[in-house]
Amino acid sequence: MTREGINQLVEEHVPKLVETITTHIETLTAPQRLKEAMLYSINAGGKRIRPLLLIATAGSYGSVTNAAYKLGAAVEMVHTYSLIHDDLPSMDDDDIRRGKLTNHKVYGEAMAILAGDALLTESFSLITDISEQDLAPRDALFLSSRLSEASGALGMVGGQVDDLAAENCSLTLDELESIHRRKTGALLAFAVEAGGLVGTSPKEDLTHLRKFAEEIGVAFQIKDDILDVEGDESAIGKPIGSDVDNKKSTYPSLLSITEAKRKLRNHIEAAENALKSLSVPAPALFSVLSYIELRDR
Amino acid sequence: MTREGINQLVEEHVPKLVETITTHIETLTAPQRLKEAMLYSINAGGKRIRPLLLIATAGSYGSVTNAAYKLGAAVEMVHTYSLIHDDLPSMDDDDIRRGKLTNHKVYGEAMAILAGDALLTESFSLITDISEQDLAPRDALFLSSRLSEASGALGMVGGQVDDLAAENCSLTLDELESIHRRKTGALLAFAVEAGGLVGTSPKEDLTHLRKFAEEIGVAFQIKDDILDVEGDESAIGKPIGSDVDNKKSTYPSLLSITEAKRKLRNHIEAAENALKSLSVPAPALFSVLSYIELRDR
Repeated sequence: MTREGINQLVEEHVPKLVETITTHIETLTAPQRLKEAMLYSINAGGKRIRPLLLIATAGSYGSVTNAAYKLGAAVEMVHTYSLIHDDLPSMDDDDIRRGKLTNHKVYGEAMAILAGDALLTESFSLITDISEQDLAPRDALFLSSRLSEASGALGMVGGQVDDLAAENCSLTLDELESIHRRKTGALLAFAVEAGGLVGTSPKEDLTHLRKFAEEIGVAFQIKDDILDVEGDESAIGKPIGSDVDNKKSTYPSLLSITEAKRKLRNHIEAAENALKSLSVPAPALFSVLSYIELRDR
Repeated sequence: MTREGINQLVEEHVPKLVETITTHIETLTAPQRLKEAMLYSINAGGKRIRPLLLIATAGSYGSVTNAAYKLGAAVEMVHTYSLIHDDLPSMDDDDIRRGKLTNHKVYGEAMAILAGDALLTESFSLITDISEQDLAPRDALFLSSRLSEASGALGMVGGQVDDLAAENCSLTLDELESIHRRKTGALLAFAVEAGGLVGTSPKEDLTHLRKFAEEIGVAFQIKDDILDVEGDESAIGKPIGSDVDNKKSTYPSLLSITEAKRKLRNHIEAAENALKSLSVPAPALFSVLSYIELRDR
């Protein structure tokens, strides 16, 4: 699969995904400035990897339903909330993300915290919003449970706590992977799992989908770390070298850049093999995988 | 009903409620310090009004089930998260709450934000944790939806945004009530509604329960404002007069203290009348109501 693959996927699904999020937020009877702050970060234009993974997984087994878009919107809102909170002065203290001022630089700290809180809360609303025709209540409840596991103390929040504690510390490779498995991997894995569930993938595919999700979780982070060393600032939209400045352990710092690239390739191959084991061809998932390896931001 | 009523209710239910929350947090595979920060604020000993309301409502229609304790735990965790975030330097900047240092004064701002995020996220886990025997998936999903409405942009978060924006402004009584209806009332109303649902209250009681919840929402806030003027600092556990210092509009500032007290009485009476209209005697709800009017903290 080629870069064209991911562009096609983006063109086909991102407009409806963004519309799902935007409509949900705009129609809330809530303070205008809060909605603005929520939408500012949603529209700061991320890669939409998580919802695309979800939609690509669901689409591999049939047509992409409303349930897939709503779940994609939920996972993107959780991701966006985590970026807003991570960027706060008391956390990573970042002023720029994706080439734009971070949320708290525009709306102030209090509003940024509350916009994050609201995005997290509304993500659960999006799941409960799905009609019973599109997703059985028992499945919706299961996915709500998995989303809170992936994003809470067991997953993303726990990973961020350990990541903050690890600044200025030298980590082992195992410790580094444990942090990223929770901070980044858990939500990516949720996306694949949710996509499989709404796509009603056959049972025998679940193990392969899980393996795929695990491998791309690691691959995604290695690529991020490599981009922080050799990326193009204007493409990434933030200064490169920030990991070194923050004395963070990264794959290149623990392994060398050459070894990090070799490790990235290994995980991509393992992910490819998992996809080849599926009962369906899943070209869209190959596109996402290729994008994860080759992206420049 | 007398003060004895509320004490009996506390003795009967709070230990199991706190155990439900504590066990949930302690058994999470998560960073120790994060769990400590979450438990610090849970154990800072609030009034537990929200879970008690939920449990008292459920108990009015039969025995108090595990589902009621889990939902009570969820609502208390949401309330606790909101206090941690509200106390942050960029919001109300409070150092002391309930006679103890606030979360960020002990654990730092980053951890306080993350502990709040985790408590909010775990509250949704608690709902999905309830077994199908205790609560049908459709009902659990409905309550998850109502909890996110009560706590998100439509409810608590939206109320806090407008509350922050209103500092140093003079509000009308309608504006003040709109803020409190969302900031405090929505979660109290959720507690009553959830209690009614797990207690399987008859349909004809729902209107009265809703009316009761609405009245106590306003009564609760008027009483809070009165305590900030005439309360006993050592009982409240924070300095009194902070509303005046922060130039906040309050019921006493808009109405006079005498009028505020009269209005409190009116809302308590309206709430009593709603309770009297129920198909069951509900002595526990009268106890909570009496406590809301007579509490000294």
